[in-house]
Amino acid sequence: MPSLTVVSPGLDDVVVGRSKISFVGGETGELVYRGFDVREIVPGVPYESIVHLLLHGDPPDRDPSTEVAAALAAARDVPPSVVGVVDALDPRLPPLDALRTILSALGDGTYAYPPTADQGYRLIARTPELLARFVRRSHGQAPLAPRSDLGHAANYLWMLTGAAPDPARVRALEGYLALLADHGMNASTFALRVAVSTQTDLVSAAVAALATLKGPVHGGAPSLVSDMLDAVGRPERAETWVADRVARGELLFGFGHRAYKTEDPRAVVLHGIAREVADPERLRLAEAVERAALATLRRAKPNARLYTNVEYYSAVVLESVGLSRDLFTPTFAVARTAGWTAHALEQAGANRLIRPDVEYVGPPSGRVWPRPLRG
Amino acid sequence: MPSLTVVSPGLDDVVVGRSKISFVGGETGELVYRGFDVREIVPGVPYESIVHLLLHGDPPDRDPSTEVAAALAAARDVPPSVVGVVDALDPRLPPLDALRTILSALGDGTYAYPPTADQGYRLIARTPELLARFVRRSHGQAPLAPRSDLGHAANYLWMLTGAAPDPARVRALEGYLALLADHGMNASTFALRVAVSTQTDLVSAAVAALATLKGPVHGGAPSLVSDMLDAVGRPERAETWVADRVARGELLFGFGHRAYKTEDPRAVVLHGIAREVADPERLRLAEAVERAALATLRRAKPNARLYTNVEYYSAVVLESVGLSRDLFTPTFAVARTAGWTAHALEQAGANRLIRPDVEYVGPPSGRVWPRPLRG
Repeated sequence: MPSLTVVSPGLDDVVVGRSKISFVGGETGELVYRGFDVREIVPGVPYESIVHLLLHGDPPDRDPSTEVAAALAAARDVPPSVVGVVDALDPRLPPLDALRTILSALGDGTYAYPPTADQGYRLIARTPELLARFVRRSHGQAPLAPRSDLGHAANYLWMLTGAAPDPARVRALEGYLALLADHGMNASTFALRVAVSTQTDLVSAAVAALATLKGPVHGGAPSLVSDMLDAVGRPERAETWVADRVARGELLFGFGHRAYKTEDPRAVVLHGIAREVADPERLRLAEAVERAALATLRRAKPNARLYTNVEYYSAVVLESVGLSRDLFTPTFAVARTAGWTAHALEQAGANRLIRPDVEYVGPPSGRVWPRPLRG
Repeated sequence: MPSLTVVSPGLDDVVVGRSKISFVGGETGELVYRGFDVREIVPGVPYESIVHLLLHGDPPDRDPSTEVAAALAAARDVPPSVVGVVDALDPRLPPLDALRTILSALGDGTYAYPPTADQGYRLIARTPELLARFVRRSHGQAPLAPRSDLGHAANYLWMLTGAAPDPARVRALEGYLALLADHGMNASTFALRVAVSTQTDLVSAAVAALATLKGPVHGGAPSLVSDMLDAVGRPERAETWVADRVARGELLFGFGHRAYKTEDPRAVVLHGIAREVADPERLRLAEAVERAALATLRRAKPNARLYTNVEYYSAVVLESVGLSRDLFTPTFAVARTAGWTAHALEQAGANRLIRPDVEYVGPPSGRVWPRPLRG
């Protein structure tokens, strides 16, 4: 068997390529989109302009991006055959399972390789729209038509609730979507680029990405933060609750990240957004649990460099915006469709099949089947 | 920015891990399943026993595997909510696009991580069944119930055609499914393992794999071989047709493979199966085009070590079995569900997030947004 050069089961030290889209500074606590530090532009820049930046590399000529706003609004008109699949889904499905099929159903034959920005706008616009349609149906509510007078985030809230969205909540959700829109070569983006590398279409690649995001190690656990806050109940109980839980060897949710060895910049910005939009009692509870958790975890593992991660204040912000917990991870996917599109465009621009080697360690060749074979 | 160790855009020389499932001997022309050379066991071993071997590591106690045959037959009873999604699909969709949504719809909440062999049997059994249902509907034909007296391959043919399957065709299809069931760390299997590494469920991971298989670089082009044979028309025309095409700089389909620098063992076995089942005229045509193509390609690139690949005689065999060309790649996926399940079980057995690094080469941090930000 041939000699092979590098073995890296998690690909930790392997650089799979170059990208101009985003930089994750794990030591410095930076997340940079195309040269812009997210701490500088979120939530000050409208979401449509962030999408423009990620897809095209530069800010638009005005805010919010005229091109993106118009393209997203135009793309909201979904083909009836796609709507029919969404309406056929079992309404009891978890929204994250439903979303995988919804994304796949978007592939109506109009997403031929190579991917284009226009295909991306359709993907970005239709994902929250069809998710909202499914959610309303699962609650026995009639679907709502999209509103052309609303931006992307506001239209999502409208289609979920049927209420005129509060500007503070829209702004908070825009900030969340902007912060979660891209994050270097994470597992779902990598799965997307592997898929694109075979010249598959954008929808298929996005489905591969969502299937990967669905795993709790990647994107599947922010709602556990809300459950944890409920279990603590009052700020005064935070220290004893956290101490008891750690003593029992159970997990705390919302702390530590493989990439960041310092404060996750997204957590910092989301904390600021939470201060603007969250119920003051809930915010006090979250801050008390955060203080107790960091103190306890750092005492237990002084060298671990543990910080609050993106999930923690994501949960507080998404609660405050009015989203139910089973929509937290699906809404993460809604945000990430922008980054996925940018990476699909970049991968297709200089494409090459991504196919690693594997070392075979099974039985050597030459085994003989134990019974006579069919002649 | 931190120093990074390895740059390999296609991950060519990177070994992502160890596997006991299959060995691809690119220099020796071997494909080995758990120690068994496929040239020795295909088509002599029933398909259900090949599935048993791939999932469990050893041959079953009898042929065909009692466990696999019973599990696949039992799994054919699909929940009505899943059938409803399949019946809502636009009948004009290409079957490969439909299959992506069909696979996703299988995720009915009963596929929790970690994956199990029983989940795999459901995936393996239901994929061809629901694909056949969609195909009949797209032709305006009523769906057919699965037949418990038939094996996996025979039931697929029955559900497509409604005719009692001819034993020679069943045997040919079993051979095809066995040969395509696994192939080391190909792109779709890698995408599946990336997905499983986040602890996503088996159905999601299989959807990621199919989305990747859909790309023509990986699995999307065997029907072009049939189109090419039609275009040549008669064996006597093979040499001039091939010479003209190569002179125009156009591609020939079914030759060359990234892994094999000698005869692809699957092509060898499929050629043998084609000799048993193909129309003699069609076989003569295929062999004439193969001879002309190899001679011409080798003259043009004497050092390229070009051989017939798996797609070439796959096309001839699948035609002979009675499948339409738009079912060639979907049927490849039907075969590969076995290998995908085996790899999902293996990945979950010693799991670790697969997440490579990327080198950021975009603008340096510190860009300033060109307009005032919202306060």
